[in-house]
Amino acid sequence: MRPKVFREKCTSKYNLIVTTAKGTATRHRIVEAAAAEIRERGTLATTLDDVCRRSGTGKSQMFHYFPEGREQLLLAVTELEAARVFDDQQPYLNELTSRAAWEAWRDVIVTDCRTRGLHCPLGVLIADVGRYSPAAQAVTTQLIRRWQDSVRAGIEATQSAGEAAPHLDPDRTAAAIVTAVQGGVSVLLSTGSADHLEAALNLCLDHLLSPARE
Amino acid sequence: MRPKVFREKCTSKYNLIVTTAKGTATRHRIVEAAAAEIRERGTLATTLDDVCRRSGTGKSQMFHYFPEGREQLLLAVTELEAARVFDDQQPYLNELTSRAAWEAWRDVIVTDCRTRGLHCPLGVLIADVGRYSPAAQAVTTQLIRRWQDSVRAGIEATQSAGEAAPHLDPDRTAAAIVTAVQGGVSVLLSTGSADHLEAALNLCLDHLLSPARE
Repeated sequence: MRPKVFREKCTSKYNLIVTTAKGTATRHRIVEAAAAEIRERGTLATTLDDVCRRSGTGKSQMFHYFPEGREQLLLAVTELEAARVFDDQQPYLNELTSRAAWEAWRDVIVTDCRTRGLHCPLGVLIADVGRYSPAAQAVTTQLIRRWQDSVRAGIEATQSAGEAAPHLDPDRTAAAIVTAVQGGVSVLLSTGSADHLEAALNLCLDHLLSPARE
Repeated sequence: MRPKVFREKCTSKYNLIVTTAKGTATRHRIVEAAAAEIRERGTLATTLDDVCRRSGTGKSQMFHYFPEGREQLLLAVTELEAARVFDDQQPYLNELTSRAAWEAWRDVIVTDCRTRGLHCPLGVLIADVGRYSPAAQAVTTQLIRRWQDSVRAGIEATQSAGEAAPHLDPDRTAAAIVTAVQGGVSVLLSTGSADHLEAALNLCLDHLLSPARE
């Protein structure tokens, strides 16, 4: 089914039609091209024409894979970038059991963000894409939840190992840590500096890894 | 001096010509109208035409006060919203000396953000406006610095009163707290929930207000 009309706007239904290996490859090429454009130029400046040009696909192909247009493509980019963000945090994210492991994880995040600066995929992921529609909000909510679950599992493992403050609520603490990273990325996007990201993560880790009190 | 050309784009020079009380009032009306449009519809959807319509001014008047166009107006809105954000935090922000004072301040921020949701001026202030140009980055960097200085003064006062952990670096801790709020607002913009804001602020305050250790 190829849509007859050129639709830039998102509607409520997301149809994805991929039937062949070649089709999957084409769709992947379009998403990769969109991700690269967004990393270089930002979400706002990236048009469907840019993505077609970069991926070497035509508008009709684009709308075959993304019949809902721009927003559907942005969500696919968000999912791709989210997978990358999770990959970048491995194996650290899944092995958070000691102060050394938490600090290695922190260093990966801070270094990544400092290096990528304004093109940090985390920034693209949530700050830019997150607020445009209920569909986008659902995707980002789910990504934050998934990320927070990984961090919470690390907190629980560290508590079990006796290296984290046992009185802390793992899920609330994980929420605070995810928020600290998000805030650090937001300040980085505004100021160009990753110092706030580092300060916020350090405070969270000091709190988490402090000995039991009272 | 009225510019002859209609300029939507920002250039490097910001000239502000306000000579009379009436002129000041007109400029203020334009900025207030722009702020209201942005709160209702977001930065992206707000055009200069919308602002002219809402403020009852013509394009030539608009470009008399904002010869650099859209971005210059956005920066004026950022400054207005920043002043509001500081006002909203008073008198709490200037009286941070005890756990009760910090919690009252936290409650004002969380309640404000929860109530305003997607129209939280803090969100407009930094997430939207902050990254478009060096001029915008300079303004947001300065605003974050000013806010962080107020929080740092509160930390120092609370440490002097013996109610905050004395070993914490006041400026780094203030940076972490400002980042936590920024992250909470960012997650709020992405998910519609202020829970992360609250969790992050609670972790920071628990860490700040914990008794001395080691």
